[in-house]
Amino acid sequence: MRNVAIVGAGITKFGVREASWKDLVQEAGKAVFDDVPNLDKKEIDSLIVGAAQPERWVNQTHVAPLVAELLGIEVKRVISRTEVACASGQAAIRYAWLAVAMGLSDIAMVVGVEKMNTKFMNFSQSSMINVGNREFDGANGFTAPPFFALVAQRHMHDFGTTREQLAMIRVKNAEYGSYNPYAQFQKKVSVEKVIESRMVAPPLTLFDCSAITDGACALILASEEKARQLTDTPVWIVGGVQHVDYAHTTNQMGDLSHWVGLRKAARDLYEMLNIKPDDIDIAEVHDCFTISEILEYEELGFCRKGEGGKFIEEGQSYVGGKVAVNPGGGLLSNGHPLGATGVRQAWEMVMQFRGEVPKERYVDNAELGIAHNLSGMAQLHHIMAYSLKKRSDVKFGR
Amino acid sequence: MRNVAIVGAGITKFGVREASWKDLVQEAGKAVFDDVPNLDKKEIDSLIVGAAQPERWVNQTHVAPLVAELLGIEVKRVISRTEVACASGQAAIRYAWLAVAMGLSDIAMVVGVEKMNTKFMNFSQSSMINVGNREFDGANGFTAPPFFALVAQRHMHDFGTTREQLAMIRVKNAEYGSYNPYAQFQKKVSVEKVIESRMVAPPLTLFDCSAITDGACALILASEEKARQLTDTPVWIVGGVQHVDYAHTTNQMGDLSHWVGLRKAARDLYEMLNIKPDDIDIAEVHDCFTISEILEYEELGFCRKGEGGKFIEEGQSYVGGKVAVNPGGGLLSNGHPLGATGVRQAWEMVMQFRGEVPKERYVDNAELGIAHNLSGMAQLHHIMAYSLKKRSDVKFGR
Repeated sequence: MRNVAIVGAGITKFGVREASWKDLVQEAGKAVFDDVPNLDKKEIDSLIVGAAQPERWVNQTHVAPLVAELLGIEVKRVISRTEVACASGQAAIRYAWLAVAMGLSDIAMVVGVEKMNTKFMNFSQSSMINVGNREFDGANGFTAPPFFALVAQRHMHDFGTTREQLAMIRVKNAEYGSYNPYAQFQKKVSVEKVIESRMVAPPLTLFDCSAITDGACALILASEEKARQLTDTPVWIVGGVQHVDYAHTTNQMGDLSHWVGLRKAARDLYEMLNIKPDDIDIAEVHDCFTISEILEYEELGFCRKGEGGKFIEEGQSYVGGKVAVNPGGGLLSNGHPLGATGVRQAWEMVMQFRGEVPKERYVDNAELGIAHNLSGMAQLHHIMAYSLKKRSDVKFGR
Repeated sequence: MRNVAIVGAGITKFGVREASWKDLVQEAGKAVFDDVPNLDKKEIDSLIVGAAQPERWVNQTHVAPLVAELLGIEVKRVISRTEVACASGQAAIRYAWLAVAMGLSDIAMVVGVEKMNTKFMNFSQSSMINVGNREFDGANGFTAPPFFALVAQRHMHDFGTTREQLAMIRVKNAEYGSYNPYAQFQKKVSVEKVIESRMVAPPLTLFDCSAITDGACALILASEEKARQLTDTPVWIVGGVQHVDYAHTTNQMGDLSHWVGLRKAARDLYEMLNIKPDDIDIAEVHDCFTISEILEYEELGFCRKGEGGKFIEEGQSYVGGKVAVNPGGGLLSNGHPLGATGVRQAWEMVMQFRGEVPKERYVDNAELGIAHNLSGMAQLHHIMAYSLKKRSDVKFGR
């Protein structure tokens, strides 16, 4: 197995964009090519595109070769689109990682893209119902907001998590979003403002929810030999796990306030890397709703089960706390263009490790970061680990 | 890099099925589990699903974890859906192969599925337009049949390929389909019958075209160690290439009678394996239209450029000829459920190498087979190589 590094990263402004999905791909492509000035595009041999539902939102499938044309790449080794709904982007990174690690590819490009805001917003929004089991959850209109609202209700019931603690997640991530020029939302908010915003599904209000967003993000992955030629600051991909534990159909799930799949995924990753949660400096986690981040603190082992609310209240997940969680602003500030989100998380890692973020959200002396993506009704959890050190060098246990 | 084998294969009847896509997944799943009786499902750690457009045809995305639920698999390592339109199935095999080769997975399941016949056939058929570049080819109704008709016209013009030679492709593949109980079409046809069938796009008639089909196919892939425990007849995956050469937008393509991407993909594969075209015993190729198989003979190097028509006329691609092409009946007999087709090609290899096909289509003493999938307007070509010998043993040059 070969070491694999991210040698370049580029992103578009996320938001409600006038741009088409093709414009977004080219904008992210230009950004990443600008980021790796020594790269000859002809050396890119592989391309993996993460996109969730272009078939619905832009009436387009077979997107990977179309992205190749848009970016002027002649793919000679591995090409595919990956789809696992909200985690389609991280899935693309994982596939490219495997291709380079195995030696089938030397330089692989990853593009995550989603264009969700269209002229037909009823159609766009109702297409989100396809993420659930269509004949069960879909037919009953059981989409993400009511599901995560039930998770919140159960967590509040079981562990005494408060409405204010939920809001504090948005307050933190809005603060970091205010220092991220690519984020959809760049205004700080107060606990009161979160709670007073429009009700979506009790207890979750508008500001507890991530948005319907357009955006794209691109990476260049390379073998160690190529990475050395292309950059002085490679960011190494040192591990990756996924876990499906829950049934996909919600009425077959277990206790909603325990995300067993995430707990198992985290355990597997920590075993793979021989690390403990304390060794993690930065965690980009999937805060599609405020309650999600609270469960993620717990299942990732940053705090004990049930103490996620206390963890944010004590400020432990701020930069300078026990672990910096979502210093890039998370999904709550950046918005959530499904296929781009997992790639944006990796982009944030690269910018952090290189020290190319504003000081207000910079995690000093960071060596190890993880990115957690979830998909669907939190049935499926995906984690990747990134580091300034190669896997063969890495000794994270301190 | 570890050796990877296919240790089990299962398929559904292909055709216009009353079954839902979920039924098809479970039917193929049962077939593959029955095929590997020693397998404990708990040992399956990864799942890759190939599907082209479930978002349109069955209003469902996030299909991979739903397949995991339908089959009762707890995925602990790698899970994704792959999409490259008509080659989504082979893309799934490739991803699973990489995961096992790299050591991230020990036993991976591959499921290819497509449910294309629905109550809303206008919607189903018009969704095929999404495969082309929507704003250019799609908006002009330039779908696969007119595109491949132009390829045929150009090939006839350049090389003197005859209408009868096109029809002979269907005659051969219909004959082999008649010995395949899973094929959508199991009747032999004559050259006259092909030519007299309903006109679709000149010169292609109905019998020159593959069909809109429902079907699923599943494989179990394993590391060498696991393979030895599970089967006495592992079929090794020994290579895989993909190549995008043409632009995706058809008006930017080169000469339609030369498929440069396929020629380059074949050259790369032969270099990778150190073989010549003569070393190939079986070739499952993507005969979405009769003309396709003629170009494939040429670009794969089975005959000289322009002599594909003569190659079929001389019977060189029959079992017992120079190379057995589509002894399973190809897409023309099996039908073309997009996500399932590439997996069915691998299923055919497994059945051939094990000697589990009727003698009329059995290729005796075969050691090496290739499967060629194409996607879109033949912009993107995908080839995998399967063998009775491991890659480390393999010496195909004779």
